[in-house]
Amino acid sequence: MSANLTDLTDIAALDHSLEAALTDRIAHKTKPPGSLGMLETLALQIGLIQQTLAPEVRRPALLVFAADHGIAAEGVSPFPQAVTQQMVANFVAGGAAINAFSRVAGFELEIVNAGVAADLSAMAGVIHIPVARGTQNFAQQAAMSRAQLEQALLAGAQRVRWHAQQGTTVIAFGEMGIANTSAAACLMSRLCDLPLAQCVGRGTGLDDAGLAHKRAVLEVALARHPRAGAADAAVDALDTLEQYGGFEIAMMTGAFLAAAQARMTILVDGFIASTALLAASRLAPAVLEYCVFAHQSDETGHRRLLEFLGARPLLALGLRLGEGTGAALALPLVRAALAFLNEMASFDAAGVSQRAD
Amino acid sequence: MSANLTDLTDIAALDHSLEAALTDRIAHKTKPPGSLGMLETLALQIGLIQQTLAPEVRRPALLVFAADHGIAAEGVSPFPQAVTQQMVANFVAGGAAINAFSRVAGFELEIVNAGVAADLSAMAGVIHIPVARGTQNFAQQAAMSRAQLEQALLAGAQRVRWHAQQGTTVIAFGEMGIANTSAAACLMSRLCDLPLAQCVGRGTGLDDAGLAHKRAVLEVALARHPRAGAADAAVDALDTLEQYGGFEIAMMTGAFLAAAQARMTILVDGFIASTALLAASRLAPAVLEYCVFAHQSDETGHRRLLEFLGARPLLALGLRLGEGTGAALALPLVRAALAFLNEMASFDAAGVSQRAD
Repeated sequence: MSANLTDLTDIAALDHSLEAALTDRIAHKTKPPGSLGMLETLALQIGLIQQTLAPEVRRPALLVFAADHGIAAEGVSPFPQAVTQQMVANFVAGGAAINAFSRVAGFELEIVNAGVAADLSAMAGVIHIPVARGTQNFAQQAAMSRAQLEQALLAGAQRVRWHAQQGTTVIAFGEMGIANTSAAACLMSRLCDLPLAQCVGRGTGLDDAGLAHKRAVLEVALARHPRAGAADAAVDALDTLEQYGGFEIAMMTGAFLAAAQARMTILVDGFIASTALLAASRLAPAVLEYCVFAHQSDETGHRRLLEFLGARPLLALGLRLGEGTGAALALPLVRAALAFLNEMASFDAAGVSQRAD
Repeated sequence: MSANLTDLTDIAALDHSLEAALTDRIAHKTKPPGSLGMLETLALQIGLIQQTLAPEVRRPALLVFAADHGIAAEGVSPFPQAVTQQMVANFVAGGAAINAFSRVAGFELEIVNAGVAADLSAMAGVIHIPVARGTQNFAQQAAMSRAQLEQALLAGAQRVRWHAQQGTTVIAFGEMGIANTSAAACLMSRLCDLPLAQCVGRGTGLDDAGLAHKRAVLEVALARHPRAGAADAAVDALDTLEQYGGFEIAMMTGAFLAAAQARMTILVDGFIASTALLAASRLAPAVLEYCVFAHQSDETGHRRLLEFLGARPLLALGLRLGEGTGAALALPLVRAALAFLNEMASFDAAGVSQRAD
């Protein structure tokens, strides 16, 4: 691993020294103990992340990374590749689901061109840091070079560091990229050592024949390159990203690592974002301690991937859209968790009697 | 049934004439069909309720009804009865969970004294419409008279009509009342014709011995008064409310009916609120078509009650607090559903290609 990447994986485990004080603060709120369920767990976790009894949601930011995938040429998605660039334009114009949800949640929304096939350099309102104009077709060769992978990881990290400088304490990552469920399925299969069939789904809406074709294409792609270095999780993760990843996925991987380094609370979106986190967790397992799992998507594989990561998602609304939409919907729950921690009275302060027994 | 009550149960079934147009509008948004899962169902339902292609969340209001229960004298709750009045003071002071969550969600919060045991008439910031200073102990006699029940039903309806006049289109009901899970368990057991054991839970946190005692007390209470008129659902519902209800529960029942009459979208909170709705649905089944089920609480019986009502809740966060907290947490999801319907671009308008197949 290059020195730059080594720096990126230097993530501290959560400091639990405030745990007793936070637990005590939660226990004395005017409510039956434990009656706020997962929001109590959330308040504790974010207090530990921010190392304070009064954690805050400040300048929440949602970064959507867009990129194209050479594998799209194999007909693994029912939508044409041009939809990636069209949706980037839609994001900028404010017309996509993530725009609507970010407005409701109060997320700062940033659109990143991580490597769209079209030349978007003239498009305003986009952070242009493309690694290349789409990846190679990983049915035939590695999706990207090692140098491109490192560039993507570091670029994602750099965006997050910029937001850290602006004061962001809660961050989320979304994605757009026609065919990226194919990349994600290969990453999951390889890194979880699970049969591909458990990792491949209908994506944006393949029918049965389309799904069978997608599986066949990805089986061949996985057979092309045997697993590299199972003995070293980091070596394995980098090799798998290089072979099957996407630029938006690799940027998210770097972004997850940098967000944990910056002690941000990370709202994890759906299937694609979770595979980027899976790779990040192989490079630095402690990244998971900074993560809040926003939702369980309907894409095949996500439920199992969440189990694999030991995650308990906040929402399960049958979403399968990506863009960070699940993360955006979960932000109000994070706000509510911190609102109860910071704003609720204690039994003593409110003069409310405690249990009789 | 008195003429006033008959008026209250006059609820129109949803008019489905806009369904095709709404479904079409949702289908043309720039996202794979169906990919917003339950939010698509929600957008359609609220469009039908408001009879428009552009439904709105206007002046959302959350009414918390507080009252005391004579059954508390039987030791069915670990908290003393005084906690009801203390929590009303806490609501007014802004220190309870529902205050924090309402602020996050943007709910107008109204606290209603439906029948607290203490004299609260001097307390500012509360709508004082108590039916009496707590119900009778229903282990020994009917919780309330028929006249008190009608007064409570109509009072709840009247509060909702006031909010309708202010322009509210989305409403939710919460409750506070020590021992009210006992009342709710009896209502559920009787109206669903289910064994009491499936309807009784730990409430605010009973231990095993406390739970066994609560069950025994409620078994005796149910045995005291045989089921009245199973042949007539409305007769049965009114009789059961009179025997085992609470003033906050009966006001919520009236409130549900009036909200559906006013074509509001109703966010249904947890176990207690759901039993009030259960009673309302026996008086006027169409009320259910105006309901959005906010969450599945951890209180025993709620999951089964939701199944009984044919409900699919939006959230399942392990809450068991009441006060309307689950409903408050779900409001941002309603906002998101209407935001996507109203703000997202169509494929045509955004110049995004549709599926290739």
